[in-house]
Amino acid sequence: MGVILAENDYGKARVRLLRVTRTSDHHDIKELTLSILFEGDFEAAHTKGDNRNILPTDTIKNTVYVLAKEYTAEQIEDFALHLVEHFLTYNPQVSQVRIEMAEHPWTRLSMNGQPHRSAFTLAGGERRSALVIGTREATTVRAGVEGLIVLKTTKSAFEGFRRDPYTTLKETRDRILSTAIRSNWLYSGDEVAFGPAWHGVRKTILETFAEHDSHSLQETLYAMGEAVLKSFDEVSEISFSLPNKHYLLVDLTPFGLENSNEVFLPTDEPHGLIEATLKKK
Amino acid sequence: MGVILAENDYGKARVRLLRVTRTSDHHDIKELTLSILFEGDFEAAHTKGDNRNILPTDTIKNTVYVLAKEYTAEQIEDFALHLVEHFLTYNPQVSQVRIEMAEHPWTRLSMNGQPHRSAFTLAGGERRSALVIGTREATTVRAGVEGLIVLKTTKSAFEGFRRDPYTTLKETRDRILSTAIRSNWLYSGDEVAFGPAWHGVRKTILETFAEHDSHSLQETLYAMGEAVLKSFDEVSEISFSLPNKHYLLVDLTPFGLENSNEVFLPTDEPHGLIEATLKKK
Amino acid sequence: MGVILAENDYGKARVRLLRVTRTSDHHDIKELTLSILFEGDFEAAHTKGDNRNILPTDTIKNTVYVLAKEYTAEQIEDFALHLVEHFLTYNPQVSQVRIEMAEHPWTRLSMNGQPHRSAFTLAGGERRSALVIGTREATTVRAGVEGLIVLKTTKSAFEGFRRDPYTTLKETRDRILSTAIRSNWLYSGDEVAFGPAWHGVRKTILETFAEHDSHSLQETLYAMGEAVLKSFDEVSEISFSLPNKHYLLVDLTPFGLENSNEVFLPTDEPHGLIEATLKKK
Amino acid sequence: MGVILAENDYGKARVRLLRVTRTSDHHDIKELTLSILFEGDFEAAHTKGDNRNILPTDTIKNTVYVLAKEYTAEQIEDFALHLVEHFLTYNPQVSQVRIEMAEHPWTRLSMNGQPHRSAFTLAGGERRSALVIGTREATTVRAGVEGLIVLKTTKSAFEGFRRDPYTTLKETRDRILSTAIRSNWLYSGDEVAFGPAWHGVRKTILETFAEHDSHSLQETLYAMGEAVLKSFDEVSEISFSLPNKHYLLVDLTPFGLENSNEVFLPTDEPHGLIEATLKKK
Repeated sequence: MGVILAENDYGKARVRLLRVTRTSDHHDIKELTLSILFEGDFEAAHTKGDNRNILPTDTIKNTVYVLAKEYTAEQIEDFALHLVEHFLTYNPQVSQVRIEMAEHPWTRLSMNGQPHRSAFTLAGGERRSALVIGTREATTVRAGVEGLIVLKTTKSAFEGFRRDPYTTLKETRDRILSTAIRSNWLYSGDEVAFGPAWHGVRKTILETFAEHDSHSLQETLYAMGEAVLKSFDEVSEISFSLPNKHYLLVDLTPFGLENSNEVFLPTDEPHGLIEATLKKK
Repeated sequence: MGVILAENDYGKARVRLLRVTRTSDHHDIKELTLSILFEGDFEAAHTKGDNRNILPTDTIKNTVYVLAKEYTAEQIEDFALHLVEHFLTYNPQVSQVRIEMAEHPWTRLSMNGQPHRSAFTLAGGERRSALVIGTREATTVRAGVEGLIVLKTTKSAFEGFRRDPYTTLKETRDRILSTAIRSNWLYSGDEVAFGPAWHGVRKTILETFAEHDSHSLQETLYAMGEAVLKSFDEVSEISFSLPNKHYLLVDLTPFGLENSNEVFLPTDEPHGLIEATLKKK
Repeated sequence: MGVILAENDYGKARVRLLRVTRTSDHHDIKELTLSILFEGDFEAAHTKGDNRNILPTDTIKNTVYVLAKEYTAEQIEDFALHLVEHFLTYNPQVSQVRIEMAEHPWTRLSMNGQPHRSAFTLAGGERRSALVIGTREATTVRAGVEGLIVLKTTKSAFEGFRRDPYTTLKETRDRILSTAIRSNWLYSGDEVAFGPAWHGVRKTILETFAEHDSHSLQETLYAMGEAVLKSFDEVSEISFSLPNKHYLLVDLTPFGLENSNEVFLPTDEPHGLIEATLKKK
Repeated sequence: MGVILAENDYGKARVRLLRVTRTSDHHDIKELTLSILFEGDFEAAHTKGDNRNILPTDTIKNTVYVLAKEYTAEQIEDFALHLVEHFLTYNPQVSQVRIEMAEHPWTRLSMNGQPHRSAFTLAGGERRSALVIGTREATTVRAGVEGLIVLKTTKSAFEGFRRDPYTTLKETRDRILSTAIRSNWLYSGDEVAFGPAWHGVRKTILETFAEHDSHSLQETLYAMGEAVLKSFDEVSEISFSLPNKHYLLVDLTPFGLENSNEVFLPTDEPHGLIEATLKKK
């Protein structure tokens, strides 16, 4: 019996970085977490212990710091593209570089109503993300959000669903709808303005979530994706992975009280999970 | 040899709650996590298996939901006070009730520049906290913040410190200073406006952090506490627990580059920890 | 411009369950966490708000409990297969069911050297996992481990690797090697004895890790996979995802001390990541 | 108005360490996480930015590594005592040193039924803990366990409890009882054999949990504490903090099934919390 190495990759994960840019009247910061994965000609390392084609993951990490120093990227997509190009240029043994990047949402503190020049607060668990995959033939750029938690108190129903003998869920015309949006979208074309595009897509997703008259989280997902695809020429595809974070109406009838959609129990588990990818035709 | 029960308490932790208040033109929400602990006459339960004095923790949880329905508290301190009073009134076997409450920072989404009537986003990991401890003689109210993460890129030095043979740290006049503020403060007087007071103290802490010319995190802690005590008559005491979240300057000299406080490595562990309580004389 | 729904699925995640089996002289327990995802004819739910093909995720959860009551599976793979068959049988609108299951490692307490009949302790963070994917044409069964953390203090080198201008890593013939094994393997054939196979594969992985004379984590991964494929006829493919959990030698030279591989700093981030799939030819 | 610094301390938390001891025929490892906190004369640092009494937390960390190299402690209590003595000896400005230490449960892998000489696996989330607090007058040593998760399927009732209008809980003579034991105990006397004492106390706790005919978690807590105090002359006091990890009986009556304590829903929140300290008279 023979054994073959069907697929393999390697790299460095959870590389962390703070970049400070200082101008005469204020400082800017950018905090990033990266993971970099290589595919390529690494079979000898697996089968023969021959490491000649293995650039150490420690070097991958060093490279991130060097390039962060030498190249001041305004947008994370640009920094990821720069890293991909670097690794492909200097590593003929590597056929594909995959970079995942997350930007942490530091925002400027205000002081007497003015933005402070050098002090910041972390605005939460949301992350702006980028996923750039490059080979010598082609490079794809995806941008996204993770951990964007939203909730609406109305315009959410769930009725007319399939029933079987184990179905006890009641139909509802008015429930809490909450999810942690994880989405990424694929850019097409060479001249994408990554900053405005990201802010625009995020705003479109949020406004659609808020206004949509929802018959299910599936329908809301589709509406958000459709709105993005219709509004942004530079986006050709968008994916969502949405947990349905259930808020259960607390039963107060044992205490002689009616709960008119006032008091809910937030739950983390179990949760529904709705996933889909929408594309332009 | 005899054994004595020196101290004991019991209660319910991680009780979660979303309260929705609906008016004709908009909805408000408040999401809370509570823990409720009783001290009292529970020795027979421990030593004899006699549960007659044990109100089930399940009942404690139910009570939270009932009172959340019947009593619409604008401020978490008021809701905690209400719960304390309820439990002391109906439970003679309980001598002390301790309530910890955390409010999650849901903020209203905006739509075409206007606040949306019924859709929200979670603004992050920061929590507004309250700690109310009541007996039949007295009740204390503490308010606080947890997980308020801040960072400043200048006005932070650490010099002139004690040295011993294991000291290798270099003195610095310009370092990143970052911490996750965990603070609570004790109110005095019966007529505290909990909402404005909380927002005011939080603002004072942040502005002092931003502006303080720091020689150490200890000095910054003290400055924040002193500013609060001097600005707020209703605050008699304030405590801080501040991790020193180190951002390490990345050494780029092996690559022939100078790192002029531009590229840093954020670290979670190990971290310094600075704690203190300040009081009015 | 048109929009198409390219892919979609939905289901329930983090469904938790404890199953107690009572015999006259002892009790057995099994604690599971499941996720169930459906693919199928759900386009109308997305595009028209028509839920007639959507079996509620709440029903999916109920079904897990009913089947857990009615069907006492000794092995998690059997329980997953049973669930897949149930959902496919009663849901013509579903084309594929994907079930991920994790079993928590409860072990029996001992009492005076004897196994206790009804008391248990949780042996840690390792999980036995199963991934069963079924359609009306075919079903695949994968078993696995997650969070199996291992460390060896010798027989691990990393030398002769590729260097570039950003490489500062020193070659080493003797380092700590540690990883958290995440692996799953594909069974072939209809008559797999899931229990003995799982225990055998796990033992083979651990013994290979311990004894392998490692030139890299890649080579150790390959050796573990090859040993499994060569020892188990019923395994046709195996995948690993292995973080390289770095233990850094602490530099004690500033204190006049030599550190002969005695004192290390364990780190969680950044970490190397090595992934591969091996197949039988 | 004047401000006083009422209390303060500082130090280093999450200091991590792996110590390898190599003999001719096998290796031993010990992985620790420490936190070290100083009390002392630090007022000038807070109020004047005068750091002359502040030994950097970076030095505290370095000292841990140096002492780990020079002093091979078999038991974590001995290592903590050694650190306390070191810091008090060389730091007159420090009046109290508090050290919390956690040992991670690495266990030796076996190979062909024999213990392997140099390979290990992490046995889970349980931690052996030590808390040593020293001043120039006295030192106290506490040992403990954290995250010791246990469950019993019988011999647990909860009946005859207090009821009020919000009580809906049903009485039960047979429920699942599960908790994550967090306990520490105070040693008295100068000649404690820390290793055997720790293993003995842990065994006593587990066997009492398993065998106790429980009327409440309070009673089980008391029984565990009493058994330890009665069995160990060197233990003068013991504390427990026990979450009541509820396993809820799943209601299968909507599906025409009876659930005879067979299928349960494990929950993390909310949870009961029972805490007590027992002392010798």
